[in-house]
Amino acid sequence: MVKRAESRSWLAVHSLATALMLSLALMPASAAVAEETAAKAPEMTWHNVATANVGGQAWSDVKAPFDRLPARAEKIVRPEVWTLSRDSSGLSVDFETNAAKFTVRWKLNTPELSFAHMTGTGVSGVDVYVQDDAGWHYLETGKPAAYPDNQVDVAAPRGRDGEAVHYRLYLPLYNGVSSVEVGVPAGAKLKFIDPPQAEKPVVIYGTSITQGCSASRPGMAYPAILGRRLGREVVNLGFSGNGKTEPEVATLLAELDPAVLVIDSLPNLSPELLAERMPGFIEIFRKSHPETPILLVQNPIYPTIPLKASPYEKVMRSSELLAGIYADRVAAGDKQIGLVAASDWSVDGGDATVDGVHPTDVGFVMLADKLEPQLREALKSKL
Amino acid sequence: MVKRAESRSWLAVHSLATALMLSLALMPASAAVAEETAAKAPEMTWHNVATANVGGQAWSDVKAPFDRLPARAEKIVRPEVWTLSRDSSGLSVDFETNAAKFTVRWKLNTPELSFAHMTGTGVSGVDVYVQDDAGWHYLETGKPAAYPDNQVDVAAPRGRDGEAVHYRLYLPLYNGVSSVEVGVPAGAKLKFIDPPQAEKPVVIYGTSITQGCSASRPGMAYPAILGRRLGREVVNLGFSGNGKTEPEVATLLAELDPAVLVIDSLPNLSPELLAERMPGFIEIFRKSHPETPILLVQNPIYPTIPLKASPYEKVMRSSELLAGIYADRVAAGDKQIGLVAASDWSVDGGDATVDGVHPTDVGFVMLADKLEPQLREALKSKL
Repeated sequence: MVKRAESRSWLAVHSLATALMLSLALMPASAAVAEETAAKAPEMTWHNVATANVGGQAWSDVKAPFDRLPARAEKIVRPEVWTLSRDSSGLSVDFETNAAKFTVRWKLNTPELSFAHMTGTGVSGVDVYVQDDAGWHYLETGKPAAYPDNQVDVAAPRGRDGEAVHYRLYLPLYNGVSSVEVGVPAGAKLKFIDPPQAEKPVVIYGTSITQGCSASRPGMAYPAILGRRLGREVVNLGFSGNGKTEPEVATLLAELDPAVLVIDSLPNLSPELLAERMPGFIEIFRKSHPETPILLVQNPIYPTIPLKASPYEKVMRSSELLAGIYADRVAAGDKQIGLVAASDWSVDGGDATVDGVHPTDVGFVMLADKLEPQLREALKSKL
Repeated sequence: MVKRAESRSWLAVHSLATALMLSLALMPASAAVAEETAAKAPEMTWHNVATANVGGQAWSDVKAPFDRLPARAEKIVRPEVWTLSRDSSGLSVDFETNAAKFTVRWKLNTPELSFAHMTGTGVSGVDVYVQDDAGWHYLETGKPAAYPDNQVDVAAPRGRDGEAVHYRLYLPLYNGVSSVEVGVPAGAKLKFIDPPQAEKPVVIYGTSITQGCSASRPGMAYPAILGRRLGREVVNLGFSGNGKTEPEVATLLAELDPAVLVIDSLPNLSPELLAERMPGFIEIFRKSHPETPILLVQNPIYPTIPLKASPYEKVMRSSELLAGIYADRVAAGDKQIGLVAASDWSVDGGDATVDGVHPTDVGFVMLADKLEPQLREALKSKL
């Protein structure tokens, strides 16, 4: 994103400022309207998010409304995977409202609000984006202040109150939620926008990096960034420390019908485990999906790779093995398989991660930049 | 930094990997050596960091060794500024050691280890960078695990153990430390490198953004990034929420002899306060420093600026006023004054901040990119 920056001209913004000053003189600011509304009309209408409204969720037969695996997975996958599948990473809720101001309430599942190397906003917070002519734009973050109940007030974009505005709400990356509600002043309209049924989602299977550690807020995990850039639903099946490419997980993935399957699990696999499991993992999915593009992602080159022997060896070996697995599939006639080269976090002074392994927002932008072009081609089945 | 990335060729790294495999077969990995050393020789020699060793510290007559203002400031500045001056933001310690492994111990001043929108590693952690032929490179982060005592083990870069390696340790951004020690195995040499006396530092006066909220770790605050890029000591005088450009602070700054003074305080000033205080603030410093370059920084264009009336008006007005103050000084014959245009965080989907105001690492890289070229010119007195 930084890379793609085309700096808006200061002068253009400045002229806009002058125009705004004039318009402000003629009409009250939306913030002022919102405050007035809240003061005069404390009654809010609360709209409860239901399973059908959730974007980024691959199964509907869930045990709780914001789970990432189906209820039956509890008896199939390892307990660690099941527990992590209850984190709401990658889940989002789209809605339209004409309210000048609305409030989001979310109820957290666990009291651990943050990690030493990850913000509370990323672990347990929510993000609100707004759609305009240029695409999605960041609007507001809900900071977690307590367990379990939290809320954030959001003002409609300047000049658009009264109009039906399209918002996206991202849910916590490393906590779960038992309920999410959007409240609007009585009389305002709100409509949840269910994920489109016609367009297949991108499904990403992976590790803590996929799940979003250590994005500063939910909208900055790389699957969320890609979802906004591609304008397509992305399912985040990252399981922190537990993306171990087990056959039972492949069997669950094989139930889905994604536009593209991305497999990004190398950081959680020893070279031995990778060699043992990856070919079978791909094969299980491929058997029922002969034409679905699959992208295999190499292990990131951590910023300490040039400096530390131990991860260096493992990372290089893993990526080499994956390249071999890819070559084998191509040789066997698989035309819908791609290999994504390792993202190199050792460049630029090695400043893309928080701890040498988990990307900051800088690293997540690098990852999105790396994956986006190949995903676009894969969506056209050009691998 | 993302912008400046020139992706290292995967093939080049790969060939290096092959070379490494061979060398690994011939000698034990440094990590293994370090582990063995720790097991056999638990006695460590601890080296205590003294005031003289601290980089990024402008005064030596301090009340406690890691304060950012002199002891006498306690009776001069507002209590909020004094309290914040005890956060170790921007302070660093350079040292050389030939140890295969060393340990950093730091003792925190306050038990608040993190904020909802800022990591523990940024608020209360430490960072270790290492110097090599290409410049500074990130090596390790010390995560704060408890109050007050914390420590982190660091392995020497691969292939350089035995050699005197130059490290930089960054101290917490939003906490203070009462002591910092570096321990090496008995017999290993360690030498602190005091800040150079010959070269004047860059001094940056500002707000929470200058202090480093919400960098993911201490090395990612923009003054720290600039220090590494410029190869020069940078003094961080950011006071969160309290960069209010008071005359008493200007009087303190006038005691210093910086290479360049950067004034980045607009986010903490209303347009009225800015108009009232900034000209006098500059004048107090300028009186005793007729030839020292001063850079005035415009208010960042927050990512929600296009969307929210309230900050829009304030930000535009502040930057316009600052441009006027700059023009007045130029008209009055001040040849050593520069104006840094606003950093625009509204581009790229507005993803440069954690909350609309405080930059993430993405925003800090943008800020460093914005300031670096003008600082380089200012260091040559070309304004």
